[in-house]
Amino acid sequence: MPEAAPQIVLFTDFGLAGPYTGQMKAVLRRAAPASDVIDLFADAPAGNAKAGAYLLAAYAAWFPPGTVFLCVVDPGVGGNRAPVIVEADGRRHVGPDNGLFELVLRRATSARVRAVTWRPEKLSASFHGRDLFAPVAAKLAAGEAPAAREHSPERHADWPDDLAEIVYIDHYGNALTGMRAAGLPASAALTVAAGKRIAHAETFSAVPPETAFWYENSNGLAEIAVNLGRADRNLALTVGSAITVER
Amino acid sequence: MPEAAPQIVLFTDFGLAGPYTGQMKAVLRRAAPASDVIDLFADAPAGNAKAGAYLLAAYAAWFPPGTVFLCVVDPGVGGNRAPVIVEADGRRHVGPDNGLFELVLRRATSARVRAVTWRPEKLSASFHGRDLFAPVAAKLAAGEAPAAREHSPERHADWPDDLAEIVYIDHYGNALTGMRAAGLPASAALTVAAGKRIAHAETFSAVPPETAFWYENSNGLAEIAVNLGRADRNLALTVGSAITVER
Amino acid sequence: MPEAAPQIVLFTDFGLAGPYTGQMKAVLRRAAPASDVIDLFADAPAGNAKAGAYLLAAYAAWFPPGTVFLCVVDPGVGGNRAPVIVEADGRRHVGPDNGLFELVLRRATSARVRAVTWRPEKLSASFHGRDLFAPVAAKLAAGEAPAAREHSPERHADWPDDLAEIVYIDHYGNALTGMRAAGLPASAALTVAAGKRIAHAETFSAVPPETAFWYENSNGLAEIAVNLGRADRNLALTVGSAITVER
Repeated sequence: MPEAAPQIVLFTDFGLAGPYTGQMKAVLRRAAPASDVIDLFADAPAGNAKAGAYLLAAYAAWFPPGTVFLCVVDPGVGGNRAPVIVEADGRRHVGPDNGLFELVLRRATSARVRAVTWRPEKLSASFHGRDLFAPVAAKLAAGEAPAAREHSPERHADWPDDLAEIVYIDHYGNALTGMRAAGLPASAALTVAAGKRIAHAETFSAVPPETAFWYENSNGLAEIAVNLGRADRNLALTVGSAITVER
Repeated sequence: MPEAAPQIVLFTDFGLAGPYTGQMKAVLRRAAPASDVIDLFADAPAGNAKAGAYLLAAYAAWFPPGTVFLCVVDPGVGGNRAPVIVEADGRRHVGPDNGLFELVLRRATSARVRAVTWRPEKLSASFHGRDLFAPVAAKLAAGEAPAAREHSPERHADWPDDLAEIVYIDHYGNALTGMRAAGLPASAALTVAAGKRIAHAETFSAVPPETAFWYENSNGLAEIAVNLGRADRNLALTVGSAITVER
Repeated sequence: MPEAAPQIVLFTDFGLAGPYTGQMKAVLRRAAPASDVIDLFADAPAGNAKAGAYLLAAYAAWFPPGTVFLCVVDPGVGGNRAPVIVEADGRRHVGPDNGLFELVLRRATSARVRAVTWRPEKLSASFHGRDLFAPVAAKLAAGEAPAAREHSPERHADWPDDLAEIVYIDHYGNALTGMRAAGLPASAALTVAAGKRIAHAETFSAVPPETAFWYENSNGLAEIAVNLGRADRNLALTVGSAITVER
């Protein structure tokens, strides 16, 4: 059996509605028909490359080497940030050089960054996801080599290795932090602005209803949740809320 | 022409946003590449296995035998509810044994329930949809037999055959009841808490604008709607609202 | 290499949630398995065939000839509007004859409209998208010819060639007008109800943060945006808001 074509995984702030993701998929499916296109996040924090960087690093690591990530959180579209291909431990990431790949790069055993020099015949001013990044991702998935040159990416040495902030609120109201749970002892407590001190539990069913706890989520992040309730409402958490760790 | 691989149909309360459905699809497409994955409901009432049970039974029946349903409304994830495979009239359903399959079972001419004994190498505490249920659904779709043993499912004899409650509000504000329309004469009226008495009509264009009516929806449920308006707002209906039937 | 099967592109007001798009896709994938199904808009303005007509014409034009568009904005479902196939410059559109194709027809170099006379074995009263339009779109994509006869479509001569109204608000709060930017000089200003006069810019990064501007979006429409802000909130814009052009 031939090896399956790599999956193309979408990580964007396009939102769920509207024509953006659909047009990218139309491009991807035409140019890389053997590759599945997987929606990972369409609702990464809008225009927030920093929060996105911690989310992306945690979630991309779950996918096997070879996977192609098409990553578009690009408030500077039309400006002079470079389009890049970031290879990290065998995974390929395509997107803007604006910090979005900072944590992927920092955590990689081996990494290589190239600036894409290939350009499409028609490049709109505002939708590089469709016109530039998607064709490049499709070429990578299809085994082609889009024109590119070695590139020194924008780095953010001041960003911590783990971000003690909320980086995403999910459908259930669970609040994902930018901290990897592996670095926190189970005895650690997380304190939120409201002053509430939140202890660790293994999972939802380990605490009484309406009780807040933190746990290692299924992608390794420390996540604050409330059993049969909403952590975002109960604890007034939103993207950017600061967390304090008591060890 | 070889017979097409069965479709895998998703029925979850994961919501539309976030990484959950995407990760499940990444698993399904790798393990059952010949099967399409169809999003049926990603917004089944959250954590509400009872409302979900009536929705699922009505909508699953539209699909042909052989279809594999991956059903995750699982507030007890990490607890001791069993993962099950429910075969009912040729359709295969994978999910938690928490009542979600009660109406599928009750309406089946022939049914078989097995508890899944297969376990993945890595099982997260909180995302059995990705780590356990999706691989099992993919195996079934691909013609493999995941390890399982006969199982007596949790039953809910106190749940009625038809639920006189709202079980879902759709995008247009239409309110789906848990009652099959086939059991209601066209002369029946439905009364909602606000006291309003709602008569039957065949479809939207059969009543004047802004008029409430009930009709048999395209999957056989009695549904309350307002022509060119929103039933949820006009009649103050939400999931769980009680309905009275006047025959 | 054989020519790829045409893509089937969805343009509906079904919303993102609920079972409607999924059931249509289940039909399409069974009947036209070689064709990808692309979600373009699931959130076209609900029940608004006029706004939808300007959106559809702008976005359909981006796709190559041969593409099949399945278009369902159909508040009159169950009434007597005809189901039609609109061929325009090689693109095929399937949907209700209610004005939704007015601008596609008007802008086409060559066009042909047929009323679909094929009917399914079972046709629900309320979901022709699944039972009638999707099977017809699948037949077209698969190279079959559903039964149809020449048809004079409903025309709307009173609708302008470009609509000076907001026809869509996207995830970022950008407000799409129904006007093609190619007909507007860069010196034109757009005035909104609040009286604010909005000048042209090439793209977001060309104006200071929090500044409103209009630009030619990636599908040729004049779009009002605010750099790093939301035009809908800042300028009180919604679908239907009137725009005045000062040349």
